[in-house]
Amino acid sequence: MTADPMQTTEATTAVADLRQHLATINDLHGASAVLGWDERTKMPPGGTDVRSERLATLGRLAHEMFVSEGTARLLEDAERDLPGLSDDSDDAALIRYARRKFDRSQAISPDLMAESIRASTQGYAVWIKARQDDDFQAFLPALERIVEVNRRFIDAFRAVQPDAEEDYDLLLEEFEPGITSQEIAEAFSALRDRTIPLVDQVRDNASRVDDARLHGSFPVEAQEHLSKVVLDRLGFDANHWRLDETHHPFASPMATTDIRITTRYMPDFFNAALFGSMHEFGHGLYERQVSPTLERTPLARGTSMAWHESQSRMWENLVGRGRPFWDWAIGPVSDAFPDAFGDQTAEDMYRAVNKLQPSLIRVEADELTYNLHIILRFELEREILAGTVALKDLSDAWNQRMHDYLGIEVPNDADGVLQDVHWSSGLFGYFPTYALGNVLSLQLWDRITNEIPGLDDNIRAGEFAPLRAWLAEHVHCHGSKYLPKDLMERVLGTRKLDPGPLADYLERKVDTLYG
Amino acid sequence: MTADPMQTTEATTAVADLRQHLATINDLHGASAVLGWDERTKMPPGGTDVRSERLATLGRLAHEMFVSEGTARLLEDAERDLPGLSDDSDDAALIRYARRKFDRSQAISPDLMAESIRASTQGYAVWIKARQDDDFQAFLPALERIVEVNRRFIDAFRAVQPDAEEDYDLLLEEFEPGITSQEIAEAFSALRDRTIPLVDQVRDNASRVDDARLHGSFPVEAQEHLSKVVLDRLGFDANHWRLDETHHPFASPMATTDIRITTRYMPDFFNAALFGSMHEFGHGLYERQVSPTLERTPLARGTSMAWHESQSRMWENLVGRGRPFWDWAIGPVSDAFPDAFGDQTAEDMYRAVNKLQPSLIRVEADELTYNLHIILRFELEREILAGTVALKDLSDAWNQRMHDYLGIEVPNDADGVLQDVHWSSGLFGYFPTYALGNVLSLQLWDRITNEIPGLDDNIRAGEFAPLRAWLAEHVHCHGSKYLPKDLMERVLGTRKLDPGPLADYLERKVDTLYG
Repeated sequence: MTADPMQTTEATTAVADLRQHLATINDLHGASAVLGWDERTKMPPGGTDVRSERLATLGRLAHEMFVSEGTARLLEDAERDLPGLSDDSDDAALIRYARRKFDRSQAISPDLMAESIRASTQGYAVWIKARQDDDFQAFLPALERIVEVNRRFIDAFRAVQPDAEEDYDLLLEEFEPGITSQEIAEAFSALRDRTIPLVDQVRDNASRVDDARLHGSFPVEAQEHLSKVVLDRLGFDANHWRLDETHHPFASPMATTDIRITTRYMPDFFNAALFGSMHEFGHGLYERQVSPTLERTPLARGTSMAWHESQSRMWENLVGRGRPFWDWAIGPVSDAFPDAFGDQTAEDMYRAVNKLQPSLIRVEADELTYNLHIILRFELEREILAGTVALKDLSDAWNQRMHDYLGIEVPNDADGVLQDVHWSSGLFGYFPTYALGNVLSLQLWDRITNEIPGLDDNIRAGEFAPLRAWLAEHVHCHGSKYLPKDLMERVLGTRKLDPGPLADYLERKVDTLYG
Repeated sequence: MTADPMQTTEATTAVADLRQHLATINDLHGASAVLGWDERTKMPPGGTDVRSERLATLGRLAHEMFVSEGTARLLEDAERDLPGLSDDSDDAALIRYARRKFDRSQAISPDLMAESIRASTQGYAVWIKARQDDDFQAFLPALERIVEVNRRFIDAFRAVQPDAEEDYDLLLEEFEPGITSQEIAEAFSALRDRTIPLVDQVRDNASRVDDARLHGSFPVEAQEHLSKVVLDRLGFDANHWRLDETHHPFASPMATTDIRITTRYMPDFFNAALFGSMHEFGHGLYERQVSPTLERTPLARGTSMAWHESQSRMWENLVGRGRPFWDWAIGPVSDAFPDAFGDQTAEDMYRAVNKLQPSLIRVEADELTYNLHIILRFELEREILAGTVALKDLSDAWNQRMHDYLGIEVPNDADGVLQDVHWSSGLFGYFPTYALGNVLSLQLWDRITNEIPGLDDNIRAGEFAPLRAWLAEHVHCHGSKYLPKDLMERVLGTRKLDPGPLADYLERKVDTLYG
């Protein structure tokens, strides 16, 4: 990790006061993280109702403390000292970050916030039932209310960002600050147009990759052991990490020194736990390697959803589904499952775990088709907010695009337009970050493979320290000090999202496996 | 559980506002409970520093919210409605409780609170080293500072309770509200005078009970399985409870619906995990059976330390070390450890787990001698505060009393006056509650065995529902609605601590085993 610029700049009293105030708020968020992790991994089910109240209280207090007059005053005082601070200092970054968040939070009235929570809570409950009943019509009124609330958010945010080109940009800002719908659309169009022919090629040559061995009997204890062996090698250390089981895997930092990742063991399918663990490891490592000087500040997190996803997908796919990895992993994997894999070569495993196949459900999609699932969601969100697709026609639009992009006929809305939780929970602008993470991971990977010439050999030998160190120095240590685009410029020398490396990579992979 | 009187009294707006305010504070305490449990059972060690900050922030915010002008106002408003409330209603109890706690909290200045935290933090660190070095002199200055802080607390509390008979009473009030040093001294003297001859009798007939089988090889997995089998039978249900491993076992409720107990598995000694689990189950059950109408109020806890300990000791000793229990437990215990216990009878096990033997260390003491360890600590605390023993003479006074009461020669201060953490952490007035719990558990047990005539048969059959139900109805459901003495009056028909039943019980046990 690089020496931190903060060390060279004396913190002013005003900044120290702001920092202290934000540390208190950060402690409330950190407490919420523990309660949330506990709820999803350890809590007896009977504890749900009270836990919801605890979390609501912590969230409310943190919000009230942040949007208070006190914060406004501390921020103004600290900003007066900004000219004396280096742009790259922790303190300057903290002031910039707090100002941006404060102005956006201030823009939302308590009434709108309350209406948003009501709409999402109700929307979620309605969605659960609508999906069970395969009844998009039943979900429609809740969705209309959610879109209406999002429009009110847009109106409020426009006061803070009057020059936003497009309404949708004002929602994207929450997840990927500084990015525009237009540039995502350009990147996604190019990616889509290069991916669709690859999907056709895979479909026409499906028999060339056989993954039958990955389906069978995989005792949970052996999977757990294997996950730990692999994670230990990647850089999981028990002094600062935990791995637990859960239904919907996630990573969550309690602090940069206390990283919790989770996975899920499917007794009849090999991939889920191993690749899930590696994915969450990527998220966890990002938070683990944030500079200790940022601890207990809001900067002690990854800078955006796409940057975060670039890290998880890098470890899951660029490492875990790469050919060099299997030269190392074949050992522990065949030790763990001698019946299934004892006679398999690294090449066999590499091919099997890379099987590509268009399918209906996003969360089960492979590396190639995943982005198309996302692109269609992004396109629909953008069209909804632009008013060019009516909500009542959303199911048809969805099904049409699944046909056009993936060649998939959607049999019902439950597995179509109703499959994901996001819209029901009020989240618009979140979906695109998944595929942006993939785009970014390849832009990064090109840079990394240039800068670590022996990387493939390292990985073949199960040696991941050089990759971790590169990521720590160039990306992780900064936490949220830089906005996503500014971090791109620092690390990649460009502010431009370029889907080229990802498309090239996918072409190479399809060529290798299905050519 | 009985129908709650609150249902018959319309809550006023003022009371509802107070309740809401206290619920927010309760959520902060509940969050602290989760963070504390996590720290002691799951947290990677590297997370310690940040966790301390999180807990300090939650504690500080909860304290600030409680001692605020806002609480004062809400409390005054609610008190105006008190005449309209039934004395037994939840609301009246909540107002009384909040008033008592508020006045005591208000009495402590922020300066004194800060000095107390500093003295305890420093005291703890000094004690750790002094105990390692077996150096009481090194601990003496820290102890003097702690006693001085306690004297300042006494002065502050006297403003709230001007008629307290004795300084020490004002510290006892924190743990056992309403009790006096004088009545504890009377109960303890009587108990001490009846216990010492029993200790002599045990010492003279030590060979009559053999517990060699309890020391051996007890694989942790089998112990864990056995603890779960026994706890499930006692009333542990996975929907609302968890059992985890830790170094220093404890019970902690996250809510009445989410009870966490912990235990510790010693691979070479049978008793620790099983009886430890039953002990913590007793604490947990008390919180689990508090009326749901008290959830998220400060009343949703056991009413005092002694009442709590009466419950843990009841399940550990009166159930677990009772003869009827072993008629049931011999099955699961010999299943778990066929080599050690396969040829043992219920009677063999009963005798072995009841071996009595004077020893040096309180936390390892048996049922008979434990109270003497406590009584000598109580006497010393009282004498320190009365100025009749000087701190510099504490080690000598300790050793003399260990000789007089237990016939034990203390070989060094590390295992003598320095053995317990309490004084180093500033806790005076806490120790006596351990033995008071034992006194109370027997007063209760006499009542219970009268009211559940088939209790022994129930226990022999591994049937604990009647005991649980009795405790729920008469004790647990009330949480902290009644002060300890008021609860005694309700349940036992007396406000008097009576060591007679405990002494009778110990005499019977000694007679059975060593007579």
